[in-house]
Amino acid sequence: MPDSGQRLPKAVSQRLSLYLRHLEALEAKQRGTVSSSQLARALGLTAAQVRKDLAYFGQFGFPGVGYKVPNLAQEVRRILGTDRTWRVALVGAGNLGTALLRYRGFRRQGFEIASVFDADPRLDGKTVAGVRVHPIGELSRVVRDEGIKLAILAVPAEAAQEVASSLAQAGVRGILNFAPTRLDVPESVRVHAVDLALQLEQLAFRVRQDDR
Amino acid sequence: MPDSGQRLPKAVSQRLSLYLRHLEALEAKQRGTVSSSQLARALGLTAAQVRKDLAYFGQFGFPGVGYKVPNLAQEVRRILGTDRTWRVALVGAGNLGTALLRYRGFRRQGFEIASVFDADPRLDGKTVAGVRVHPIGELSRVVRDEGIKLAILAVPAEAAQEVASSLAQAGVRGILNFAPTRLDVPESVRVHAVDLALQLEQLAFRVRQDDR
Repeated sequence: MPDSGQRLPKAVSQRLSLYLRHLEALEAKQRGTVSSSQLARALGLTAAQVRKDLAYFGQFGFPGVGYKVPNLAQEVRRILGTDRTWRVALVGAGNLGTALLRYRGFRRQGFEIASVFDADPRLDGKTVAGVRVHPIGELSRVVRDEGIKLAILAVPAEAAQEVASSLAQAGVRGILNFAPTRLDVPESVRVHAVDLALQLEQLAFRVRQDDR
Repeated sequence: MPDSGQRLPKAVSQRLSLYLRHLEALEAKQRGTVSSSQLARALGLTAAQVRKDLAYFGQFGFPGVGYKVPNLAQEVRRILGTDRTWRVALVGAGNLGTALLRYRGFRRQGFEIASVFDADPRLDGKTVAGVRVHPIGELSRVVRDEGIKLAILAVPAEAAQEVASSLAQAGVRGILNFAPTRLDVPESVRVHAVDLALQLEQLAFRVRQDDR
Protein backbone atom coordinates (compact mmCIF):
# COMPACT_ATOMS: atom_id res chain seq x y z
CA MET A 1 0.00 0.00 0.00
CA PRO A 2 2.52 2.63 -0.94
CA ASP A 3 1.38 6.23 -0.75
CA SER A 4 -2.32 5.59 -0.26
CA GLY A 5 -3.09 9.10 0.82
CA GLN A 6 -1.34 8.86 4.18
CA ARG A 7 0.83 11.88 4.90
CA LEU A 8 4.47 11.21 5.61
CA PRO A 9 5.96 13.14 8.52
CA LYS A 10 8.41 15.82 7.38
CA ALA A 11 11.37 14.07 9.04
CA VAL A 12 10.60 10.91 7.06
CA SER A 13 10.30 12.71 3.72
CA GLN A 14 13.62 14.46 4.40
CA ARG A 15 15.26 11.12 5.09
CA LEU A 16 13.77 9.79 1.82
CA SER A 17 15.77 12.44 -0.06
CA LEU A 18 18.91 11.30 1.77
CA TYR A 19 18.20 7.62 1.03
CA LEU A 20 17.73 8.55 -2.61
CA ARG A 21 21.08 10.39 -2.78
CA HIS A 22 22.83 7.37 -1.34
CA LEU A 23 20.95 4.89 -3.56
CA GLU A 24 21.92 6.94 -6.61
CA ALA A 25 25.57 6.80 -5.55
CA LEU A 26 25.22 3.00 -5.26
CA GLU A 27 23.51 2.83 -8.67
CA ALA A 28 26.45 4.73 -10.16
CA LYS A 29 28.74 2.05 -8.72
CA GLN A 30 26.43 -0.66 -10.12
CA ARG A 31 25.72 -2.11 -6.71
CA GLY A 32 22.77 -4.54 -6.92
CA THR A 33 21.60 -4.70 -3.31
CA VAL A 34 21.91 -2.79 -0.05
CA SER A 35 20.94 -3.82 3.48
CA SER A 36 19.18 -1.64 6.01
CA SER A 37 22.30 -1.65 8.18
CA GLN A 38 24.47 -0.48 5.26
CA LEU A 39 22.01 2.32 4.50
CA ALA A 40 21.91 3.16 8.21
CA ARG A 41 25.68 3.32 8.53
CA ALA A 42 26.06 5.51 5.45
CA LEU A 43 23.51 8.02 6.76
CA GLY A 44 24.22 7.93 10.48
CA LEU A 45 20.87 6.34 11.40
CA THR A 46 19.91 3.07 13.12
CA ALA A 47 18.99 0.07 10.99
CA ALA A 48 15.65 -0.07 12.80
CA GLN A 49 14.93 3.53 11.74
CA VAL A 50 15.72 2.73 8.12
CA ARG A 51 13.48 -0.36 8.13
CA LYS A 52 10.69 1.63 9.74
CA ASP A 53 10.98 4.46 7.19
CA LEU A 54 10.95 2.13 4.21
CA ALA A 55 8.14 -0.02 5.60
CA TYR A 56 6.11 3.22 5.67
CA PHE A 57 5.49 2.86 1.99
CA GLY A 58 5.47 -0.90 1.80
CA GLN A 59 9.11 -1.62 1.03
CA PHE A 60 10.45 -4.69 2.79
CA GLY A 61 14.00 -5.98 2.36
CA PHE A 62 14.82 -9.66 1.91
CA PRO A 63 16.48 -11.20 5.00
CA GLY A 64 20.19 -11.68 4.39
CA VAL A 65 19.96 -9.85 1.05
CA GLY A 66 18.49 -6.45 1.69
CA TYR A 67 16.87 -4.17 -0.85
CA LYS A 68 17.38 -4.17 -4.59
CA VAL A 69 19.06 -0.82 -5.25
CA PRO A 70 17.37 0.19 -8.56
CA ASN A 71 13.90 -0.87 -7.38
CA LEU A 72 14.22 0.95 -4.07
CA ALA A 73 15.61 4.08 -5.77
CA GLN A 74 12.71 4.08 -8.23
CA GLU A 75 10.18 3.60 -5.44
CA VAL A 76 11.63 6.48 -3.41
CA ARG A 77 11.55 8.71 -6.52
CA ARG A 78 7.93 7.78 -7.03
CA ILE A 79 7.04 8.67 -3.45
CA LEU A 80 8.94 11.95 -3.68
CA GLY A 81 7.34 12.70 -7.04
CA THR A 82 10.66 13.04 -8.85
CA ASP A 83 10.05 10.06 -11.13
CA ARG A 84 8.76 12.72 -13.51
CA THR A 85 10.35 16.04 -14.50
CA TRP A 86 9.05 19.17 -12.79
CA ARG A 87 9.15 22.35 -14.83
CA VAL A 88 10.28 25.26 -12.71
CA ALA A 89 10.19 29.04 -13.19
CA LEU A 90 13.19 31.04 -12.02
CA VAL A 91 12.64 34.67 -11.11
CA GLY A 92 15.81 36.73 -10.93
CA ALA A 93 18.71 36.27 -13.35
CA GLY A 94 21.38 38.04 -11.31
CA ASN A 95 24.41 36.27 -9.86
CA LEU A 96 22.39 33.88 -7.76
CA GLY A 97 19.87 33.16 -10.53
CA THR A 98 22.68 32.51 -13.00
CA ALA A 99 24.40 30.20 -10.52
CA LEU A 100 21.14 28.31 -10.05
CA LEU A 101 20.66 28.03 -13.83
CA ARG A 102 24.10 26.48 -14.08
CA TYR A 103 23.59 24.18 -11.11
CA ARG A 104 23.66 20.67 -12.50
CA GLY A 105 22.04 19.08 -9.48
CA PHE A 106 18.52 20.28 -10.34
CA ARG A 107 18.18 18.47 -13.64
CA ARG A 108 19.79 15.35 -12.21
CA GLN A 109 17.04 15.24 -9.58
CA GLY A 110 14.20 15.83 -12.01
CA PHE A 111 13.87 19.62 -12.11
CA GLU A 112 14.07 21.63 -15.30
CA ILE A 113 14.25 25.41 -15.19
CA ALA A 114 11.79 26.00 -17.98
CA SER A 115 11.60 29.79 -17.94
CA VAL A 116 13.52 32.68 -16.46
CA PHE A 117 12.30 36.17 -15.63
CA ASP A 118 14.07 39.36 -14.64
CA ALA A 119 12.99 42.94 -14.03
CA ASP A 120 16.15 44.40 -15.59
CA PRO A 121 15.24 45.55 -19.14
CA ARG A 122 18.87 45.09 -20.19
CA LEU A 123 18.40 41.33 -19.84
CA ASP A 124 15.22 41.15 -21.99
CA GLY A 125 15.62 38.49 -24.61
CA LYS A 126 19.22 37.80 -23.56
CA THR A 127 20.26 34.23 -22.94
CA VAL A 128 21.66 33.16 -19.58
CA ALA A 129 23.20 29.68 -19.35
CA GLY A 130 21.30 28.78 -22.50
CA VAL A 131 17.87 29.98 -21.37
CA ARG A 132 16.18 33.12 -22.71
CA VAL A 133 15.27 35.73 -20.08
CA HIS A 134 11.67 37.01 -20.16
CA PRO A 135 10.70 40.46 -18.90
CA ILE A 136 9.00 40.21 -15.52
CA GLY A 137 5.78 41.55 -17.07
CA GLU A 138 5.33 38.23 -18.89
CA LEU A 139 5.54 36.21 -15.68
CA SER A 140 1.82 35.57 -15.13
CA ARG A 141 1.07 34.73 -18.74
CA VAL A 142 4.01 32.34 -19.25
CA VAL A 143 3.60 30.57 -15.90
CA ARG A 144 -0.11 30.10 -16.52
CA ASP A 145 0.27 29.07 -20.18
CA GLU A 146 2.96 26.55 -19.36
CA GLY A 147 1.18 25.22 -16.28
CA ILE A 148 4.26 25.73 -14.11
CA LYS A 149 3.70 24.78 -10.46
CA LEU A 150 7.12 25.40 -8.88
CA ALA A 151 9.18 28.58 -8.80
CA ILE A 152 12.56 29.66 -7.47
CA LEU A 153 12.72 33.20 -6.14
CA ALA A 154 16.18 34.75 -6.52
CA VAL A 155 15.27 38.44 -6.45
CA PRO A 156 16.26 41.14 -3.93
CA ALA A 157 14.29 41.10 -0.68
CA GLU A 158 12.42 44.30 -1.61
CA ALA A 159 10.95 42.71 -4.74
CA ALA A 160 10.18 39.28 -3.29
CA GLN A 161 6.66 39.80 -1.95
CA GLU A 162 5.27 41.30 -5.16
CA VAL A 163 6.75 38.50 -7.26
CA ALA A 164 5.49 35.85 -4.83
CA SER A 165 1.96 37.24 -5.06
CA SER A 166 2.09 37.20 -8.87
CA LEU A 167 3.38 33.63 -8.85
CA ALA A 168 0.60 32.52 -6.53
CA GLN A 169 -2.03 34.21 -8.69
CA ALA A 170 -0.62 32.54 -11.78
CA GLY A 171 -1.10 29.12 -10.20
CA VAL A 172 2.31 28.36 -8.71
CA ARG A 173 1.96 26.00 -5.73
CA GLY A 174 5.49 25.90 -4.33
CA ILE A 175 8.14 28.62 -3.99
CA LEU A 176 11.78 28.03 -3.10
CA ASN A 177 12.65 31.41 -1.61
CA PHE A 178 16.25 32.65 -1.55
CA ALA A 179 15.28 36.22 -0.72
CA PRO A 180 16.01 36.88 2.96
CA THR A 181 12.45 37.92 3.76
CA ARG A 182 9.22 36.31 4.90
CA LEU A 183 6.55 35.88 2.22
CA ASP A 184 2.84 36.27 2.71
CA VAL A 185 1.07 33.89 0.31
CA PRO A 186 -2.28 32.07 0.19
CA GLU A 187 -2.49 28.83 2.19
CA SER A 188 -2.54 26.79 -0.98
CA VAL A 189 1.05 27.84 -1.74
CA ARG A 190 4.01 26.20 0.01
CA VAL A 191 7.07 28.33 0.65
CA HIS A 192 10.41 26.80 1.49
CA ALA A 193 12.90 29.43 2.60
CA VAL A 194 16.59 28.83 1.95
CA ASP A 195 18.26 30.70 4.77
CA LEU A 196 21.96 30.58 3.93
CA ALA A 197 23.03 32.41 7.08
CA LEU A 198 21.18 29.84 9.16
CA GLN A 199 23.22 27.07 7.62
CA LEU A 200 26.46 28.90 8.41
CA GLU A 201 25.18 29.57 11.93
CA GLN A 202 24.52 25.87 12.54
CA LEU A 203 27.95 25.00 11.19
CA ALA A 204 29.64 27.55 13.46
CA PHE A 205 27.69 26.16 16.40
CA ARG A 206 28.89 22.60 15.72
CA VAL A 207 32.50 23.74 15.33
CA ARG A 208 32.31 25.62 18.59
CA GLN A 209 30.78 22.64 20.36
CA ASP A 210 33.59 20.40 19.10
CA ASP A 211 36.04 22.69 20.87
CA ARG A 212 34.57 22.09 24.30
CA MET B 1 24.32 27.08 33.96
CA PRO B 2 23.79 27.64 30.31
CA ASP B 3 26.10 25.81 27.97
CA SER B 4 28.17 23.99 30.58
CA GLY B 5 29.63 21.53 28.14
CA GLN B 6 26.41 19.64 27.52
CA ARG B 7 25.79 18.98 23.85
CA LEU B 8 22.52 20.22 22.44
CA PRO B 9 20.70 17.82 20.11
CA LYS B 10 20.81 18.97 16.50
CA ALA B 11 17.04 19.53 16.34
CA VAL B 12 17.28 21.88 19.34
CA SER B 13 20.15 23.90 17.89
CA GLN B 14 18.25 24.25 14.62
CA ARG B 15 15.23 25.54 16.49
CA LEU B 16 17.51 28.01 18.30
CA SER B 17 18.35 29.57 14.93
CA LEU B 18 14.63 29.86 14.19
CA TYR B 19 13.91 31.40 17.60
CA LEU B 20 16.69 33.87 16.95
CA ARG B 21 15.27 34.91 13.57
CA HIS B 22 11.90 35.54 15.16
CA LEU B 23 13.37 37.35 18.17
CA GLU B 24 15.30 39.62 15.82
CA ALA B 25 12.10 40.43 13.95
CA LEU B 26 10.50 41.30 17.31
CA GLU B 27 13.54 43.42 18.27
CA ALA B 28 13.17 45.33 15.01
CA LYS B 29 9.58 46.09 16.01
CA GLN B 30 10.81 47.12 19.49
CA ARG B 31 8.71 44.47 21.23
CA GLY B 32 9.83 44.14 24.84
CA THR B 33 8.55 40.69 25.79
CA VAL B 34 7.33 37.50 24.16
CA SER B 35 5.58 34.49 25.69
CA SER B 36 6.34 30.85 24.93
CA SER B 37 2.94 30.48 23.30
CA GLN B 38 3.57 33.48 21.01
CA LEU B 39 6.94 32.04 20.02
CA ALA B 40 5.32 28.65 19.51
CA ARG B 41 2.55 30.06 17.31
CA ALA B 42 5.01 32.02 15.14
CA LEU B 43 7.15 28.94 14.52
CA GLY B 44 4.53 26.22 14.36
CA LEU B 45 5.64 24.49 17.58
CA THR B 46 3.92 23.74 20.87
CA ALA B 47 4.44 26.10 23.81
CA ALA B 48 5.69 23.12 25.84
CA GLN B 49 8.38 22.47 23.23
CA VAL B 50 9.51 26.10 23.31
CA ARG B 51 9.71 26.12 27.09
CA LYS B 52 11.64 22.84 27.08
CA ASP B 53 14.11 24.13 24.47
CA LEU B 54 14.76 27.36 26.30
CA ALA B 55 15.01 25.67 29.70
CA TYR B 56 17.81 23.60 28.14
CA PHE B 57 20.17 26.47 28.64
CA GLY B 58 18.63 27.88 31.78
CA GLN B 59 16.20 30.42 30.33
CA PHE B 60 12.91 30.60 32.21
CA GLY B 61 10.13 32.99 31.31
CA PHE B 62 8.19 34.97 33.86
CA PRO B 63 4.60 33.72 34.36
CA GLY B 64 2.14 36.06 32.67
CA VAL B 65 4.98 38.10 31.15
CA GLY B 66 7.15 35.74 29.15
CA TYR B 67 10.71 36.33 28.07
CA LYS B 68 12.47 39.65 27.63
CA VAL B 69 13.13 39.84 23.90
CA PRO B 70 16.60 41.45 23.88
CA ASN B 71 17.90 39.26 26.73
CA LEU B 72 16.62 36.08 25.16
CA ALA B 73 17.99 37.03 21.74
CA GLN B 74 21.38 37.76 23.26
CA GLU B 75 21.38 34.48 25.16
CA VAL B 76 20.50 32.49 22.03
CA ARG B 77 23.27 34.28 20.13
CA ARG B 78 25.69 33.39 22.89
CA ILE B 79 24.70 29.72 22.79
CA LEU B 80 24.94 29.65 18.98
CA GLY B 81 28.28 31.46 19.12
CA THR B 82 27.14 34.34 16.94
CA ASP B 83 27.53 36.96 19.66
CA ARG B 84 30.94 37.47 18.10
CA THR B 85 31.84 37.89 14.41
CA TRP B 86 33.17 34.83 12.59
CA ARG B 87 35.64 35.52 9.81
CA VAL B 88 34.92 33.27 6.84
CA ALA B 89 36.94 32.35 3.75
CA LEU B 90 35.06 32.04 0.46
CA VAL B 91 36.55 29.82 -2.21
CA GLY B 92 35.12 30.38 -5.68
CA ALA B 93 34.25 33.84 -7.00
CA GLY B 94 32.01 32.73 -9.87
CA ASN B 95 28.29 33.48 -10.02
CA LEU B 96 27.48 31.64 -6.82
CA GLY B 97 30.48 33.06 -4.95
CA THR B 98 29.58 36.57 -6.07
CA ALA B 99 25.96 36.08 -5.01
CA LEU B 100 27.16 34.88 -1.59
CA LEU B 101 29.49 37.89 -1.27
CA ARG B 102 26.53 40.17 -1.90
CA TYR B 103 24.21 38.25 0.42
CA ARG B 104 23.41 40.61 3.23
CA GLY B 105 22.17 37.90 5.59
CA PHE B 106 25.65 36.68 6.52
CA ARG B 107 26.94 39.87 8.07
CA ARG B 108 23.64 40.46 9.82
CA GLN B 109 24.03 37.09 11.55
CA GLY B 110 27.65 37.61 12.56
CA PHE B 111 29.62 36.29 9.58
CA GLU B 112 32.15 38.35 7.67
CA ILE B 113 33.60 37.06 4.43
CA ALA B 114 37.17 38.07 5.18
CA SER B 115 38.94 36.66 2.14
CA VAL B 116 38.03 35.32 -1.26
CA PHE B 117 39.98 32.90 -3.45
CA ASP B 118 39.59 31.79 -7.05
CA ALA B 119 41.60 29.60 -9.39
CA ASP B 120 40.90 31.81 -12.42
CA PRO B 121 44.04 33.94 -13.01
CA ARG B 122 41.87 36.60 -14.70
CA LEU B 123 40.34 37.36 -11.30
CA ASP B 124 43.69 37.79 -9.46
CA GLY B 125 43.68 41.05 -7.58
CA LYS B 126 40.25 42.00 -8.98
CA THR B 127 37.60 43.16 -6.58
CA VAL B 128 34.25 41.36 -6.32
CA ALA B 129 31.52 43.03 -4.28
CA GLY B 130 34.24 45.11 -2.63
CA VAL B 131 36.53 42.23 -1.65
CA ARG B 132 39.87 41.54 -3.36
CA VAL B 133 40.18 38.07 -4.91
CA HIS B 134 43.32 36.10 -3.98
CA PRO B 135 44.83 33.46 -6.25
CA ILE B 136 44.02 29.98 -4.96
CA GLY B 137 47.76 29.38 -4.35
CA GLU B 138 47.59 31.81 -1.42
CA LEU B 139 44.76 29.93 0.28
CA SER B 140 46.79 28.01 2.89
CA ARG B 141 48.95 30.96 3.85
CA VAL B 142 46.12 33.48 4.18
CA VAL B 143 43.76 31.13 6.03
CA ARG B 144 46.51 30.15 8.44
CA ASP B 145 47.83 33.71 8.94
CA GLU B 146 44.37 35.09 9.57
CA GLY B 147 43.31 32.16 11.78
CA ILE B 148 40.16 31.59 9.74
CA LYS B 149 38.11 28.63 10.99
CA LEU B 150 35.10 28.63 8.65
CA ALA B 151 34.99 28.41 4.86
CA ILE B 152 32.37 28.46 2.14
CA LEU B 153 33.06 26.23 -0.84
CA ALA B 154 31.53 27.56 -4.05
CA VAL B 155 33.77 25.85 -6.62
CA PRO B 156 32.87 23.29 -9.29
CA ALA B 157 32.42 19.71 -8.04
CA GLU B 158 35.67 18.57 -9.69
CA ALA B 159 37.74 21.07 -7.69
CA ALA B 160 35.96 20.68 -4.35
CA GLN B 161 37.92 17.81 -2.77
CA GLU B 162 41.33 19.36 -3.36
CA VAL B 163 40.23 22.70 -1.96
CA ALA B 164 38.59 21.03 1.05
CA SER B 165 41.81 19.17 1.84
CA SER B 166 43.83 22.41 1.64
CA LEU B 167 41.33 24.17 3.89
CA ALA B 168 41.50 21.36 6.46
CA GLN B 169 45.29 21.43 6.41
CA ALA B 170 45.29 25.18 6.89
CA GLY B 171 43.24 24.81 10.07
CA VAL B 172 39.67 25.36 8.87
CA ARG B 173 37.22 23.52 11.14
CA GLY B 174 33.93 23.97 9.32
CA ILE B 175 33.07 23.96 5.62
CA LEU B 176 29.75 25.04 4.11
CA ASN B 177 29.80 23.05 0.88
CA PHE B 178 27.77 24.18 -2.14
CA ALA B 179 29.58 21.85 -4.54
CA PRO B 180 27.31 18.91 -5.35
CA THR B 181 29.83 16.32 -4.20
CA ARG B 182 30.75 14.47 -1.01
CA LEU B 183 33.93 15.65 0.71
CA ASP B 184 36.44 13.46 2.47
CA VAL B 185 37.97 15.47 5.34
CA PRO B 186 39.58 14.68 8.70
CA GLU B 187 37.18 14.01 11.58
CA SER B 188 38.07 17.32 13.18
CA VAL B 189 36.44 19.19 10.29
CA ARG B 190 32.67 19.61 10.07
CA VAL B 191 31.08 19.72 6.63
CA HIS B 192 27.59 21.04 6.09
CA ALA B 193 26.39 20.32 2.56
CA VAL B 194 23.90 22.71 1.00
CA ASP B 195 21.98 20.47 -1.36
CA LEU B 196 19.79 22.86 -3.36
CA ALA B 197 18.11 20.08 -5.35
CA LEU B 198 17.10 18.40 -2.09
CA GLN B 199 15.29 21.54 -1.00
CA LEU B 200 13.40 21.69 -4.29
CA GLU B 201 12.63 17.98 -3.99
CA GLN B 202 11.12 18.43 -0.54
CA LEU B 203 9.06 21.36 -1.78
CA ALA B 204 7.77 19.35 -4.75
CA PHE B 205 6.88 16.52 -2.40
CA ARG B 206 4.83 18.82 -0.15
CA VAL B 207 3.01 20.35 -3.12
CA ARG B 208 2.21 16.91 -4.45
CA GLN B 209 0.96 15.76 -1.06
CA ASP B 210 -1.31 18.80 -0.80
CA ASP B 211 -2.99 17.61 -4.00
CA ARG B 212 -4.07 14.28 -2.59
